Amino acid sequence: MLNFNFQNPTHIHFGEGQISALSSEVPIDARVLVVYGGGSIKANGVYQQVVDALSEHTWFEFSGIEPNPSYDTLMKAQAIIQSENIDYILAVGGGSVVDGAKFIAAAALFEGDEPWDILAKQAEFNHALPIGAVLTLPATGSESNGNSVVTRDGNKLPFSSPLVRPLFAVLDPTVTLSLSDRQISNGVVDAFVHTIEQYLTYSVNGKVQDRFSEGLLQTLIEEGPKALTPDTKEDLAVRANIMWSATMALNGLIGAGVPQDWSTHMIGHELTGAFGIDHARTLSIVLPSVMKVRREQKREKLLQYAARVWQVTEGDEEARIDEAIRLTEQFFKDMQVPTRLSDVELGNKDIDTLVSRLEQHGMVALGEQGDITLEVSRKILEQAL
Amino acid sequence: MLNFNFQNPTHIHFGEGQISALSSEVPIDARVLVVYGGGSIKANGVYQQVVDALSEHTWFEFSGIEPNPSYDTLMKAQAIIQSENIDYILAVGGGSVVDGAKFIAAAALFEGDEPWDILAKQAEFNHALPIGAVLTLPATGSESNGNSVVTRDGNKLPFSSPLVRPLFAVLDPTVTLSLSDRQISNGVVDAFVHTIEQYLTYSVNGKVQDRFSEGLLQTLIEEGPKALTPDTKEDLAVRANIMWSATMALNGLIGAGVPQDWSTHMIGHELTGAFGIDHARTLSIVLPSVMKVRREQKREKLLQYAARVWQVTEGDEEARIDEAIRLTEQFFKDMQVPTRLSDVELGNKDIDTLVSRLEQHGMVALGEQGDITLEVSRKILEQAL
Repeated sequence: MLNFNFQNPTHIHFGEGQISALSSEVPIDARVLVVYGGGSIKANGVYQQVVDALSEHTWFEFSGIEPNPSYDTLMKAQAIIQSENIDYILAVGGGSVVDGAKFIAAAALFEGDEPWDILAKQAEFNHALPIGAVLTLPATGSESNGNSVVTRDGNKLPFSSPLVRPLFAVLDPTVTLSLSDRQISNGVVDAFVHTIEQYLTYSVNGKVQDRFSEGLLQTLIEEGPKALTPDTKEDLAVRANIMWSATMALNGLIGAGVPQDWSTHMIGHELTGAFGIDHARTLSIVLPSVMKVRREQKREKLLQYAARVWQVTEGDEEARIDEAIRLTEQFFKDMQVPTRLSDVELGNKDIDTLVSRLEQHGMVALGEQGDITLEVSRKILEQAL
Repeated sequence: MLNFNFQNPTHIHFGEGQISALSSEVPIDARVLVVYGGGSIKANGVYQQVVDALSEHTWFEFSGIEPNPSYDTLMKAQAIIQSENIDYILAVGGGSVVDGAKFIAAAALFEGDEPWDILAKQAEFNHALPIGAVLTLPATGSESNGNSVVTRDGNKLPFSSPLVRPLFAVLDPTVTLSLSDRQISNGVVDAFVHTIEQYLTYSVNGKVQDRFSEGLLQTLIEEGPKALTPDTKEDLAVRANIMWSATMALNGLIGAGVPQDWSTHMIGHELTGAFGIDHARTLSIVLPSVMKVRREQKREKLLQYAARVWQVTEGDEEARIDEAIRLTEQFFKDMQVPTRLSDVELGNKDIDTLVSRLEQHGMVALGEQGDITLEVSRKILEQAL
């Protein structure tokens, strides 16, 4: 196990009816900006629950945060923050809304030249408005971590700080019942790949971390398809297990003390930036190919993954690894996401674009060993054709 | 899954050399009381590392906290807290020292009649001195939870508050290399039974919680005996896996959203109180018997435990449960702890004493269903003869 630091103070309120916890979790004297997306929270009753819980609070609202939240949209929130002396941000939505809230919260108190530097120059900041979150789409883990990704002109740029980690997060699985199949499948695949990025590397004998990751992967494999199947999709227990898995997949715990990869994400970001592919669908296209191209570097963990997550123990090493990759692809197909560039109508001609964008963004040494050069990324993309 | 609240803000510093983190984690203007036990930290170099890390701090010390820390000992710390205006407690030791530090921290600012009420009357308190911890013995999880058990006149009395959860904990597995075999075996068994208390109940389909618990149990089963075996006992990876398992076993995570038992602990406390048996050794005596007597109530989980933790999948249900219990007892024997009352020279004549103490302490409705009456506890003790 590697040395590590771990702290995650986000207070989780999990279960049906927990949105009411807002009334006590948000300070009564706060001037709150409720931020959300396109209005689905009005259709599914979440907005009304928030309104009810904040009936004694002073609050304002800012809507229109889109998937892959854009810098330009988020900066528009600064006007109301200034005019209404907002001192608390409440994000109500999925990972994009929470990511957007984090940038809004940091930008509001940024003391540098312009908030764009937080993304473009990874400028440090020492203050951010406090954030709470009501999660409506289990996927990114953003509700209890300090990570955020913001898009400008087709470029997805991350920043991270413990200052923007939500102080609390409400996870009510009943609110996920109104999600579309596509949102559910994207969320499950996102959480699955988050786990893989922190697990499928090289072994440092971190037994707790490995088993926790394997437990999350198994849970997502079991429960994910149920959330897309008519007989079981309304089962609240299925939704609850998916929701808790997605939070645990990226709250810092399973990655503490172990190497991390993240090459699938970095390559996937370019697919979203250049061609607008849903984030999770970029991951399901890239990951199987990463497994194939990085087979030697990840051999030990691929065999462990085959045995423990898929119960594949028969045959020689090559056959077991092949089978684990095949089962991963089959799981993605069961989750109704693409596993090939051709599935999203991309081909050989588009690989140059993607590789040059990786170069432009400095993504020239990816992976847990930093040895995924542009050439290796090209191979990964070619393997995914 | 049950609704739950979960928050654990303790900052973990894990790994070799991490005691140096004290220099920045303890506020430089604090007036620190370093509390510890019998002086083993002076023999193994931990004390010197603490002294070095606090070289710029103002600190005092209070030693002599014993296993099963006593109220009378802990109250002696109040004199130096008052005379030196102590405003920060740093616990350096195992679970008893950390538990003791929690009581010291709460007693120092207690506004009621007398601090004894915190234990005897479960009196509420609104303030406690901040606590940091340097853990030397992985076992109780006290380093990142708000629980404490204090003994007075042979009675073990618990209290719990988020106010006494350590703000940070240093977990350096190298410091565990100087522990005796008995300390290691007690610690591993304690962590194992903590996990079982939150796992072996009735199913609420909490898949993440179940798999995390199973991962901890498997890790302790694999690594525990290695820490007692000459060839492997110096292996730092073994110590690291045990240390992280013990913290995760009782930091609130695996118990969030699932029923909890704790009858083994409650019955075990009377064995310590009445006969001075080491805490972990009371658990290894009582747990197999709880499994036998509560076989019907825990049937589904016993079968899951058999299959997932012990890979016992052959035979009918009764045979699989029998085998899982046998393997649990064998694990305890491998860990060199007793599994019978007769192993610690107790017999039928002592059961009346234990049952009357349970009655005296109000332990008349134990277990995840609250249906372990005194009569059932008697059966459990008789089964353990």
